[in-house]
Amino acid sequence: MTYLPPDEATRARMLDTVRFDAAGLIAAVAQQHDTGEILMLAWMNRAALDETLRTGRVCYFSRSRDALWRKGETSGQVQSLVDARLDCDRDAVVLLVDQQGVACHTGRRSCFFNAMRPEGLVETSAPLVSPDSLYGQG
Amino acid sequence: MTYLPPDEATRARMLDTVRFDAAGLIAAVAQQHDTGEILMLAWMNRAALDETLRTGRVCYFSRSRDALWRKGETSGQVQSLVDARLDCDRDAVVLLVDQQGVACHTGRRSCFFNAMRPEGLVETSAPLVSPDSLYGQG
Repeated sequence: MTYLPPDEATRARMLDTVRFDAAGLIAAVAQQHDTGEILMLAWMNRAALDETLRTGRVCYFSRSRDALWRKGETSGQVQSLVDARLDCDRDAVVLLVDQQGVACHTGRRSCFFNAMRPEGLVETSAPLVSPDSLYGQG
Repeated sequence: MTYLPPDEATRARMLDTVRFDAAGLIAAVAQQHDTGEILMLAWMNRAALDETLRTGRVCYFSRSRDALWRKGETSGQVQSLVDARLDCDRDAVVLLVDQQGVACHTGRRSCFFNAMRPEGLVETSAPLVSPDSLYGQG
């Protein structure tokens, strides 16, 4: 599956329709394109979404670091874009991606592993890799 | 599939671990439990998430109306909860649901239908029902 990037003018025209919030952000949900698994939820500003569409490599905006966050730059766990889909009111985006390795900093495929059950929080998956191995401390 | 609600003490204990933002909200992503389709992204405050866990009927918080939003109360398009899963840093939740009818106010199953393509925005699905029929004007 080859991702085809829109040209600059087309990107600008589409980005003009996005309703970024007061902080200039929209919520972005990454979903593995072929299995439907939801991997993570993060944030994008206009520059992050533009870079993602231009390069086909997912780039978020880190609110804690106040900077662009090129997913996998440190860990190697990159997300290749397959399709980006804005919602009906243009203030959220689903990214259909091909996730290399694991999406979660805990070493799990998905960040959404804390199920809210009658017995309390239950982890629905175990880490596939050590977090240390993701960030060069292993 | 019968949803089993946690009791009040267990709900309170789990809700105490959720990291609501400065406005008291977390992002909530609804996913059809058996197909994996992402239906919508909305917001929940503590009361909305507690009611959802208690009743097994999804209740959001409407930022525009500043009030609880019992999904389907007007349209009949209710979401029955199957499982709620917090992410690794507890500031987002995926709701595995069984969606009755359509999730989107435009009459589509999913709100995420505006694909960002080389030729510009492309609608990936057409309405299944008339929006008027959802809100009693049909």
